[in-house]
Amino acid sequence: MASSDKANPPATRTEALMEEIRRRMARRALGVGDRLPSVRAFAREMVVSPSTVVEAYARLVAEGLIRSRPGSGFTVAGPLPPLTLAEIEPRRERAIDPLWVSRQSLDAEAGVQRPGCGWLPADWMPHEAVRRALRTMARADDGLLADYGSTQGSPALRRLLARQFAAEGMDVAAGQILLTSSGTQALDLLCRLFLRAGDTVLVDDPCYFNFQALLRAHRVLVVGVPRTPQGPDLAAFAEAVAAHRPRLYVTNSAIHNPTGGTLSAQAAHRVLTIAGAGEMIVVEDDILADFEPEPSPRLAVLDGLDRVVRIGSFSKTLSASVRCGYVAGRRDWIEGLVDLQVATSFGSVGPLAAGVVETVLGEGGYRRHMAQLRQRLARQRKAAIAALAPLGIEPWTIPRGGFSLWCHLPEGCSSVELARAALERGIVLAPGNVFSASESADAMMRFNVAQMGDGVIEALGALLGPARLSRASG
Amino acid sequence: MASSDKANPPATRTEALMEEIRRRMARRALGVGDRLPSVRAFAREMVVSPSTVVEAYARLVAEGLIRSRPGSGFTVAGPLPPLTLAEIEPRRERAIDPLWVSRQSLDAEAGVQRPGCGWLPADWMPHEAVRRALRTMARADDGLLADYGSTQGSPALRRLLARQFAAEGMDVAAGQILLTSSGTQALDLLCRLFLRAGDTVLVDDPCYFNFQALLRAHRVLVVGVPRTPQGPDLAAFAEAVAAHRPRLYVTNSAIHNPTGGTLSAQAAHRVLTIAGAGEMIVVEDDILADFEPEPSPRLAVLDGLDRVVRIGSFSKTLSASVRCGYVAGRRDWIEGLVDLQVATSFGSVGPLAAGVVETVLGEGGYRRHMAQLRQRLARQRKAAIAALAPLGIEPWTIPRGGFSLWCHLPEGCSSVELARAALERGIVLAPGNVFSASESADAMMRFNVAQMGDGVIEALGALLGPARLSRASG
Repeated sequence: MASSDKANPPATRTEALMEEIRRRMARRALGVGDRLPSVRAFAREMVVSPSTVVEAYARLVAEGLIRSRPGSGFTVAGPLPPLTLAEIEPRRERAIDPLWVSRQSLDAEAGVQRPGCGWLPADWMPHEAVRRALRTMARADDGLLADYGSTQGSPALRRLLARQFAAEGMDVAAGQILLTSSGTQALDLLCRLFLRAGDTVLVDDPCYFNFQALLRAHRVLVVGVPRTPQGPDLAAFAEAVAAHRPRLYVTNSAIHNPTGGTLSAQAAHRVLTIAGAGEMIVVEDDILADFEPEPSPRLAVLDGLDRVVRIGSFSKTLSASVRCGYVAGRRDWIEGLVDLQVATSFGSVGPLAAGVVETVLGEGGYRRHMAQLRQRLARQRKAAIAALAPLGIEPWTIPRGGFSLWCHLPEGCSSVELARAALERGIVLAPGNVFSASESADAMMRFNVAQMGDGVIEALGALLGPARLSRASG
Repeated sequence: MASSDKANPPATRTEALMEEIRRRMARRALGVGDRLPSVRAFAREMVVSPSTVVEAYARLVAEGLIRSRPGSGFTVAGPLPPLTLAEIEPRRERAIDPLWVSRQSLDAEAGVQRPGCGWLPADWMPHEAVRRALRTMARADDGLLADYGSTQGSPALRRLLARQFAAEGMDVAAGQILLTSSGTQALDLLCRLFLRAGDTVLVDDPCYFNFQALLRAHRVLVVGVPRTPQGPDLAAFAEAVAAHRPRLYVTNSAIHNPTGGTLSAQAAHRVLTIAGAGEMIVVEDDILADFEPEPSPRLAVLDGLDRVVRIGSFSKTLSASVRCGYVAGRRDWIEGLVDLQVATSFGSVGPLAAGVVETVLGEGGYRRHMAQLRQRLARQRKAAIAALAPLGIEPWTIPRGGFSLWCHLPEGCSSVELARAALERGIVLAPGNVFSASESADAMMRFNVAQMGDGVIEALGALLGPARLSRASG
């Protein structure tokens, strides 16, 4: 009972009927023991002849998916196909499907160029500091190397984070912080705590594409709010909150992914006011915070972690291999998250990973590394902007930091087509619509200024000619 | 809007009414904007005077939880309290609540004795091998130290596992294996793939207590099947499958947790036959497999990973700090799990953790370590049995391996009362009912033969006197 291969549409009407029955089973519109539509009813519904339905049903019986009983018609035999993410909602064409793009970027072979990916090359990361930390951990107590550790995660690392938050003006106790295996896992726990299937969640449009894959897994309705360089479009934000009464708003404020904009103080205040009136919880993802040249306004800081929950991670700045993130918020919410994490992972981030992070952060060298990284990225960003300009590719806004550049493609150019063509040349791009819940960003593309390696600009130039022509011709 | 404190029952009728409304909101029986029952209807239902309802509603309005509109009655204001695990089903008394017992064991201070916990002391684990592996990883390529790694996890470790499975007679491709951060996370992903709220899942009674906490988080019905020393009670198993049509059966075959029994070949065959007829998927947790003196029959091996999914972990034998587990099964199911893991954790186990595991497993020393560990545990088990016997505590069956001992307490003794009394002395025990979905194991207790440190036997002896007396008196 293989799930249907959506890349190969059914060749015959019979197969299309079988596919439809499988889809209804996958969506649980048909459960084990339920009766299928009668032959006549289904033929009418699908606009086919009854004999085609008979053939389809006979083949499903042969596959063991359904049963036939005289006088009872056809019933579902089960087990039902697992509810894969593909069935929860119609899967997008893969070039703009968040999950497909994620997997392409993560699983690409070593030689493949990834100017669309959302992380720095390994040699840009503080690998020497991580090596030192590993040697330090190799001398740690047996317990740190073998035990599960506490359910909230390393107290020392949580205290370090609390001190960092205090320096931002946020008075947070270490007990209000939970360590998780990643920022994504932190958001997933929050979704498990707060959301039920059918709830509505607000996101920026465009937003980090894996937010959409995660929210799809939680079977919630996703509504996007257009983004300006200073934050969400406030009129649209107010309207969306009033119209949809979302349970959550998931966003990032410092160096927004993918646009690179930064939340202004006025927008921050308005967002919190509107969220308060709409009784909406806000999740602020701080994953790129360390890339800022200086701190910008944060919803978490203004709000004091009352309605806002902060999530973060060390994957972009320290190591994506070590797997450590965190969530900070109200104590009673953190308490609920601890329960969920124990139930679903039995334990927090292990003492080893937390120890590596704490050791690296505690060294003076980490701050120097980040300062140099910010400068290097600033130079790289300038160079990338200059190299893209002759191709007619221009940034939507100039980010204050980080590695992403959200760009307009030349007039008439489709980023989906460009991405498809680039893939054939072994280049993984990030077309605008993978970031856009409303799929309104086909003229945009996100580039990673640290991954514009040899040949990427040339390849883009070569590809843009045909892509532009094909879009103009319709 | 703090969630109710269930340890302090409401003092007044008014508070009880407010508590009931909060509970319905938490369970989503009342959603944002829904009307509350009329004053008269609620008074009738709760058997109180209408004026008490009026007072309760007025106080809820003052708290901002509900609104009053003339002509429209009272409606829910929101946001709804998060659906913590405490609200999903009535929380058990904590001494037998899986989550509470887990958190007690994981968060206990260094000096606290943990004869009820389910892991070895740190100094029994192969810490020298882990130290060597960390130093090896400190010399690894930048990519291993910084990158996310592939979505299925280290190909080298998956190939190693596939070779181990082949040695058991199971022909599994590395592509049928997904690395996860733990065995629990592997099971959680499977639950996300296969289960919908309201499904039924079969477990052994007794079973690993965190299975119950995890299944509660998935809001499924849990049905327990009594266990014999050779596997599930087959008549009861067949009956439960026919009566409940469970979606999944979650079990372990080699060294069952907590009973220590081992699945016989006959039971394995019958279980698979019954599962097949009932169209039920089986998840076989192999976490204690390396503790076996020699391999016993496995559902996964007999079935060839068609209907059975195998999960495993290195937490009990290598390190609980490194956080690495796996799942092996049908390719299309693994494919669905990869999607879910990318969406919810963005990436598999990082290359660092996988590299540590692979390095340790690849050393000849690991096999020797496990062989010595099995012998040490055999001696410790003998000693523990001998020490517990004079207290009237006797094993239900003698395990072939592992560290657990599932024991009858003396006649008339309640394990819940014993556990409560022990906690006051700083000893965390594992009373039988925390493992039993049907709460039919109050006369049983699980002991960890490697955690029966100084004073535990004496303390048990001192406690058993009063505990026995109190049970006998009712």
